[in-house]
Amino acid sequence: MNLTILGCHAATPKISAHPTAQVLEMKGHLFLIDCGEGTQVQLRKYKVKFSRVKHIFISHLHGDHFFGLPGLISTFHLMGREAEMHIYGPKGIKEAILLLLKLGKSRTKFPLYFHELEATSTQLIYEDEKVTVETIPLIHRVYTNGFLFKEKLGDRKLNIEAAKEANIDLSYYNKIKSGFDVENQDGKLIPNAQITFDPPTPKSYAFCSDTVYSPKMVPQISNTTVLYHESTFLNVHQELCVKTKHSTAKEAGMIAKDAQVGTLILGHYSGRYNNLELFRSEAKEFFDNVLLAEDGKVFQFK
Amino acid sequence: MNLTILGCHAATPKISAHPTAQVLEMKGHLFLIDCGEGTQVQLRKYKVKFSRVKHIFISHLHGDHFFGLPGLISTFHLMGREAEMHIYGPKGIKEAILLLLKLGKSRTKFPLYFHELEATSTQLIYEDEKVTVETIPLIHRVYTNGFLFKEKLGDRKLNIEAAKEANIDLSYYNKIKSGFDVENQDGKLIPNAQITFDPPTPKSYAFCSDTVYSPKMVPQISNTTVLYHESTFLNVHQELCVKTKHSTAKEAGMIAKDAQVGTLILGHYSGRYNNLELFRSEAKEFFDNVLLAEDGKVFQFK
Repeated sequence: MNLTILGCHAATPKISAHPTAQVLEMKGHLFLIDCGEGTQVQLRKYKVKFSRVKHIFISHLHGDHFFGLPGLISTFHLMGREAEMHIYGPKGIKEAILLLLKLGKSRTKFPLYFHELEATSTQLIYEDEKVTVETIPLIHRVYTNGFLFKEKLGDRKLNIEAAKEANIDLSYYNKIKSGFDVENQDGKLIPNAQITFDPPTPKSYAFCSDTVYSPKMVPQISNTTVLYHESTFLNVHQELCVKTKHSTAKEAGMIAKDAQVGTLILGHYSGRYNNLELFRSEAKEFFDNVLLAEDGKVFQFK
Repeated sequence: MNLTILGCHAATPKISAHPTAQVLEMKGHLFLIDCGEGTQVQLRKYKVKFSRVKHIFISHLHGDHFFGLPGLISTFHLMGREAEMHIYGPKGIKEAILLLLKLGKSRTKFPLYFHELEATSTQLIYEDEKVTVETIPLIHRVYTNGFLFKEKLGDRKLNIEAAKEANIDLSYYNKIKSGFDVENQDGKLIPNAQITFDPPTPKSYAFCSDTVYSPKMVPQISNTTVLYHESTFLNVHQELCVKTKHSTAKEAGMIAKDAQVGTLILGHYSGRYNNLELFRSEAKEFFDNVLLAEDGKVFQFK
């Protein structure tokens, strides 16, 4: 599981402060999460292969989280894309994108599917053999969802040495991987655990931006491997959080602590701060394992 | 008259190839012409004062010419802008911008006026004491206008020495500036030309992008000081111009020659070419004074 931060700054884009966009690599997928203005240039800069992006998740319809989407879709079209593209975002996103394409007399040659969201409770919005994605209802000035990406528990791994020793017929391979006990060639039932290794622990990633401090999310994101939680402000500006429905680094740290996540990544910094280390130290008072998002940074979670 | 090129490349934005946007400084105005994705960052990079931009002209509704506009308007709002903003562009632009603002539950606190265009013949769309702006109907895949910015002929300049010598009462100052002959203090009529200098020759700027080769524009832009004409392709790819309704550098040179403009600036280059000097040499076969647009370049016309 890798996370590439394309942009992690609040509000207006600047030369070296890009609005929210990130790419989560999970089980062979490249999931694009949010798409602020300039995301397509950031994708190029950090050498993310456009054709591998097939699912885009938009948290909410503020410009710094989705004004890069029309241009990205146009570029996919100009590059001759043929693969499907799925877009998950608040109701209204389809009308906006289709209007912009229509005004330019453009249409996409590739299949473009919109999955519009309007539920205020969590929803499973994507599932395949290896991963699930569900919404995390957030509280912001407009309808907003975070997203929880979860790897599924994989197959058990065959312990070839042990299987040989137990005299197992390997035509049972699929049954063994799935966790069943099987009879060996002497007719003896061999417990699955004797001839397999545990699969890797599934990883999970929760993206929570933008949101006011919202402890209601804690049960859902409990024990998540990595939590990205917005921290637009420091505690000294807590009153701005109330007004703009954002969080402080302290509040992000409190959520991480209560949810007992593995790692907390902070981001969505307001432009008023020069020293981002202040965000880390503020959150660390509540939760130890804090990382700071930076444009272009790649986090690897082994 | 100064022209700052913020972006001059066709189609998809890249790290060092920005889509169309430019700022024309004329008689105290900063006119923004087109607004591809990333324009607000380019404005910051080249230190254009946001508050001085009060008129934005959009040629057509292809993404590389206007997908930066929603973000720019949002940023004006976030920066607390109060000054009026006027947007001139094809019919539909208002619906698009207002929909995007509505989805983000945003509204602009500053007065935002849309001047939607749908005429297919030239129209005067802006006029004040010092300048006029008219549309130049272009031929492209969608409804498109170029823009012709013209300084008005200024007042005559008083020749103080000559006026003293002719014994003129300077309370006639405004009459003299306006070109009238006046009586001197001995009652003798003094010809205006004897006591004034000619005003500077008015300058003009024609922006013509995107368009197929269209000699129909020649009479309107005849003798323009500076012509920016798109040259998406070189002549070797002329067949692509027919298909995509763009021009070659050769065709831009022919228009400049026929219109007897002062200077031709080429831009809107396709990404397929590495050596932009080929554009210059191709146009130069028809017209001598050819400049090449480059992102960040400032042209000064004294």
